[in-house]
Amino acid sequence: MAGNTIGKVFRVTTFGESHGTALGCVIDGMPPGLELSSDDLQYDLNRRRPGTSRYTTQRSELDEVQILSGVFKGTTTGTSIGLVIQNKDQRSQDYSEIKDLFRPGHADYTYEKKYGIRDYRGGGRSSARETAMRVAAGSIAKKYLKIQTGIVIRAYLSAMGDIKCPFESWEEVEQNPFFCSNKNKVFQLEELIKKLKKTGDSIGAEITIIAQNVPVGFGEPVFDRLDADLAHALMSINAAKGVEIGDGFSVVNQKGSENRDEMTPNGFKSNHCGGILGGISNGENIFLKVAFKPTSSIRQSGNTINKNNEKVKIVIKGRHDPCVGIRAVPIAEAMVAIVLMDHLLRFRAQCAK
Amino acid sequence: MAGNTIGKVFRVTTFGESHGTALGCVIDGMPPGLELSSDDLQYDLNRRRPGTSRYTTQRSELDEVQILSGVFKGTTTGTSIGLVIQNKDQRSQDYSEIKDLFRPGHADYTYEKKYGIRDYRGGGRSSARETAMRVAAGSIAKKYLKIQTGIVIRAYLSAMGDIKCPFESWEEVEQNPFFCSNKNKVFQLEELIKKLKKTGDSIGAEITIIAQNVPVGFGEPVFDRLDADLAHALMSINAAKGVEIGDGFSVVNQKGSENRDEMTPNGFKSNHCGGILGGISNGENIFLKVAFKPTSSIRQSGNTINKNNEKVKIVIKGRHDPCVGIRAVPIAEAMVAIVLMDHLLRFRAQCAK
Amino acid sequence: MAGNTIGKVFRVTTFGESHGTALGCVIDGMPPGLELSSDDLQYDLNRRRPGTSRYTTQRSELDEVQILSGVFKGTTTGTSIGLVIQNKDQRSQDYSEIKDLFRPGHADYTYEKKYGIRDYRGGGRSSARETAMRVAAGSIAKKYLKIQTGIVIRAYLSAMGDIKCPFESWEEVEQNPFFCSNKNKVFQLEELIKKLKKTGDSIGAEITIIAQNVPVGFGEPVFDRLDADLAHALMSINAAKGVEIGDGFSVVNQKGSENRDEMTPNGFKSNHCGGILGGISNGENIFLKVAFKPTSSIRQSGNTINKNNEKVKIVIKGRHDPCVGIRAVPIAEAMVAIVLMDHLLRFRAQCAK
Amino acid sequence: MAGNTIGKVFRVTTFGESHGTALGCVIDGMPPGLELSSDDLQYDLNRRRPGTSRYTTQRSELDEVQILSGVFKGTTTGTSIGLVIQNKDQRSQDYSEIKDLFRPGHADYTYEKKYGIRDYRGGGRSSARETAMRVAAGSIAKKYLKIQTGIVIRAYLSAMGDIKCPFESWEEVEQNPFFCSNKNKVFQLEELIKKLKKTGDSIGAEITIIAQNVPVGFGEPVFDRLDADLAHALMSINAAKGVEIGDGFSVVNQKGSENRDEMTPNGFKSNHCGGILGGISNGENIFLKVAFKPTSSIRQSGNTINKNNEKVKIVIKGRHDPCVGIRAVPIAEAMVAIVLMDHLLRFRAQCAK
Repeated sequence: MAGNTIGKVFRVTTFGESHGTALGCVIDGMPPGLELSSDDLQYDLNRRRPGTSRYTTQRSELDEVQILSGVFKGTTTGTSIGLVIQNKDQRSQDYSEIKDLFRPGHADYTYEKKYGIRDYRGGGRSSARETAMRVAAGSIAKKYLKIQTGIVIRAYLSAMGDIKCPFESWEEVEQNPFFCSNKNKVFQLEELIKKLKKTGDSIGAEITIIAQNVPVGFGEPVFDRLDADLAHALMSINAAKGVEIGDGFSVVNQKGSENRDEMTPNGFKSNHCGGILGGISNGENIFLKVAFKPTSSIRQSGNTINKNNEKVKIVIKGRHDPCVGIRAVPIAEAMVAIVLMDHLLRFRAQCAK
Repeated sequence: MAGNTIGKVFRVTTFGESHGTALGCVIDGMPPGLELSSDDLQYDLNRRRPGTSRYTTQRSELDEVQILSGVFKGTTTGTSIGLVIQNKDQRSQDYSEIKDLFRPGHADYTYEKKYGIRDYRGGGRSSARETAMRVAAGSIAKKYLKIQTGIVIRAYLSAMGDIKCPFESWEEVEQNPFFCSNKNKVFQLEELIKKLKKTGDSIGAEITIIAQNVPVGFGEPVFDRLDADLAHALMSINAAKGVEIGDGFSVVNQKGSENRDEMTPNGFKSNHCGGILGGISNGENIFLKVAFKPTSSIRQSGNTINKNNEKVKIVIKGRHDPCVGIRAVPIAEAMVAIVLMDHLLRFRAQCAK
Repeated sequence: MAGNTIGKVFRVTTFGESHGTALGCVIDGMPPGLELSSDDLQYDLNRRRPGTSRYTTQRSELDEVQILSGVFKGTTTGTSIGLVIQNKDQRSQDYSEIKDLFRPGHADYTYEKKYGIRDYRGGGRSSARETAMRVAAGSIAKKYLKIQTGIVIRAYLSAMGDIKCPFESWEEVEQNPFFCSNKNKVFQLEELIKKLKKTGDSIGAEITIIAQNVPVGFGEPVFDRLDADLAHALMSINAAKGVEIGDGFSVVNQKGSENRDEMTPNGFKSNHCGGILGGISNGENIFLKVAFKPTSSIRQSGNTINKNNEKVKIVIKGRHDPCVGIRAVPIAEAMVAIVLMDHLLRFRAQCAK
Repeated sequence: MAGNTIGKVFRVTTFGESHGTALGCVIDGMPPGLELSSDDLQYDLNRRRPGTSRYTTQRSELDEVQILSGVFKGTTTGTSIGLVIQNKDQRSQDYSEIKDLFRPGHADYTYEKKYGIRDYRGGGRSSARETAMRVAAGSIAKKYLKIQTGIVIRAYLSAMGDIKCPFESWEEVEQNPFFCSNKNKVFQLEELIKKLKKTGDSIGAEITIIAQNVPVGFGEPVFDRLDADLAHALMSINAAKGVEIGDGFSVVNQKGSENRDEMTPNGFKSNHCGGILGGISNGENIFLKVAFKPTSSIRQSGNTINKNNEKVKIVIKGRHDPCVGIRAVPIAEAMVAIVLMDHLLRFRAQCAK
């Protein structure tokens, strides 16, 4: 049983390879009555798309999304929404170099062993290009959540390498190519990227996501807790290696007297739990962190094997982000939006009066 | 749409409240032909069950599991397996104290707001008692995985508070009440727990889980990646606040040249990825870490509110673990087993020749 | 992927073999706030249970259902509901006669071939005994539907053999052991059953189910249409061989001018469609028919084979209904209730304002 | 929770309105390694598509399907398959006539009431045009089933109005525009259609589907029995009103001694059950019948209401089949193929050695 669907009630099913004809998805479970046009999706797609700054990959895709169904006279109808983005920049390049070997850190080896065949062009289905559809679907969820419940979901780069970027302002996030909320850190980030480009290396990153105005009651224990579903969604993003809710791993060294969020008639006194108690949103802001590993496609020569299990050297050229974590910002937002949308509808099914 | 089922092909659906009549589950999707008796389940249930040492809660439940169906003449038949554990130690205690207030750090508030009603006895469905059924189901998965593919899943306490417990030996894990693999740390752990008991406080913990001999090919991109499903399962355990795969959050400060696991004809040269590439197992050991918050039920007085939103003081008496993370060891193993079992069957459906 | 769950939002997962320890189920997705006790379930269980009249099997099971979870102080809490019925009348009879051969018309052969093992005692999982849990779950759905939307679901025996039993009155249905709505037919039915008992034979039956007060809007095109889900649920009952909605197979010889249900400001002028248009309930009564094959367990000698593919003669003794269709009445009602309940909740998730 | 997905392991999710931009689907769960090109899909699409004969609607759509993903170098890769058909013949006609009223027998009324909005152009999502994607997906399933297990799925028109068309030969089915297997009946069918066209009326039909070479073991009791899933799939086709397996409703008047299919060392002596016992395929041919109601869009004037609940007369012009049942032949085949494909993969997950 394959796994190209996320969500149980708001369900997003995606398809498409990096260098195939097109990417697309079907969104099933979208309620009727939302005003929607492709412009609503394009904003986030542009934030995600490669080639928008010199710090991300230079592949130039316009990523123009087309709504094929489910919207009539500018309004969702409750039927399934088909989305498609044509792949335009499929450089007719020669892939003979990589088609028979396994790039370290990539899914080449595992796809080949699992399926017995793989579309090696640009990583095929395992390429981060697939995330364009997550962002498109997430934009629809974001819009609906905003209108229906006031939920606002935003993310920023909170660390890259050893540069910590503590939160400063949401306005700043859109002012620099790093989604960094902290103006004072931008120069350091630029310098780091420049150095990496020179040495042909890459670096990891940490993204922080905050969802505001989430009502009390989202999350379905005991397995589909909101935190569990968020962890699933975020860990399903390419290169993600860790997820934290609230204080995350810091809780290991916390005492109960410090960690438990006391309550007063005016609300919670603290938010160590990150807005989720017993797997259910408690009305506070939801805080999430995700760690992204450094890009595996680097110019530095590396050791690997080919299909015949022979030793080969590999140098990966081409247009690659020195830090995949940067573009993960709109993707992480989208995943959180999809999960919250799913849980809004699940709440309605289970608990609506 | 409620969320008491985990798994898509190997599906475990649980029920039961802390102080209700019984806990139970249905396992649907178990292949026929496995020799199985309740003894196979009891070993891990005993490891999880409270009252086994003076460092965990003193509630004494025998947790005797009964197999109600799906096994005939000691062998699974391919039909659904019903399991049940009677709740015996339902002390007829007076819950009037907590029935109208919300214990800080607990799910009292969120259950009340979500459902409009909650079984307040011992936390009802939100109690960790629910995990007994996870452990029972996990034991079946473990046994099948072991026999069919040689997979071995084990976990240990890798940190409690500021005491790091680096791995020493699997034998030691079962020799002390902390599931600590490191003999030299046991005394420190004992001292910490004693101190906490004295002060009526609690502490967080970190568990490490290792799955060995997992074949290449488990995991279903792009959403049901093996790492995403593992993160979901582990984050669904009570008190879990963070999950890491492989190097986890350390990757933020790693370079690509360091992080990408190079390959040679003899296999991978390193395992920063934790055994999963592109969401699919790569044949190496799978490394996972989970952070558990400190027990919220502590003897120290705390502030909270009651149903009328009035300020009240709370002191939680009763039998509570100073560190819920300890007992999470068999639970985490069980969750990993359930996920791997699900993916073994999903692999067969999708890729079996 | 096994199939012991029905419903997507209101999900019922059952387990249990005919002569195993117990039957049970988990109901996940029940909204909180419904007053519920085991008495609510017992009424329909009694209607279904064997041994209630001399026209159905004489196996005597009390079928006392126990609610293990999900209900607190007489009210559903929104958590999963565990139900169990102990098997008491597991006669320690000798099954050596049938354990190695395949009873014609039964699932012995297909279970053996599919799973490689089967619980042959009383048919194991393939026994109609499994339907007790459907009836129990259906009773909960019935009660909720009645209170929330006024839906009433009832069924009756509309034919047995060549005896047609056109509808007369709902009161009569509960007055005779055949669930026949037509007093004048009861004698004929009795005579037919007597004759069959004498000859050791059995007979087929047709059940009609009517759901009243179903609101407009239940059903999820294009696949989970209400009619499609009803057909699935009804065809999943043991011995069902045909399902009709509205005019059913009669439409083959109808003209469009006759079949299309015209509308007036006062509503539909006819109901050929059986209350469902385009897969969605239209507010009219829903009409369904199901055909049940004659009991395969008959006293007349028959030809079959054993596990070694050798020719054997078989005579089935024991307590068997001459007409399984009779007891299918409460079962069919339950299946319709489960489907409508699922679609009520699905409607809320998708279209609730 | 919407319902545009069919299948659990082989999952087909469709989208698209009659007069929208395009129709499409995603097929998730297709095993890797099948040679596949759009030509494989086009054959059945052509059999289904309107305008192929003067007996079906004259809307002329080429229905050219494009494979957007999941196939690399002519072979499936195990990743999700995106399919799309552009709508070309979206006549820019004036829909003002029907946009505010509810055509009798159509889903106009139920869609409007359920969703509060509907795409009225050509029926929108409720149009039979949606079935093109079923046929496309079914073709892939058919090809895989044929190659892997030898399964052959074929259907024919077995009745139209009072003209019974007993089976004669599969060759004949493709020789006439009615999918009639019986050469001698073609003239009568032609005459009936001519008469209907003259009077502006329509007629119902019955389709018979036969699946040959289905291995023993497909079907997942107790709910996802093969017959239950087939009933679901067939009843989900527009205009379907009844489904039969094997002898169907004839079993009501059969005796057990006649109906139970006796076995001999050479196999079953009869096939009253239609190839399914206890919900599991028994290795015999699977026999299914479906009843389709007459086209509701007829030229004869009818009574209906508009959105303001005012009485109006309606005459439906345009290109409509006098008998929708005819084109249901390839659609029914496709639905059976999708279900069998799903169960082949489910069998592998659950019972593969």
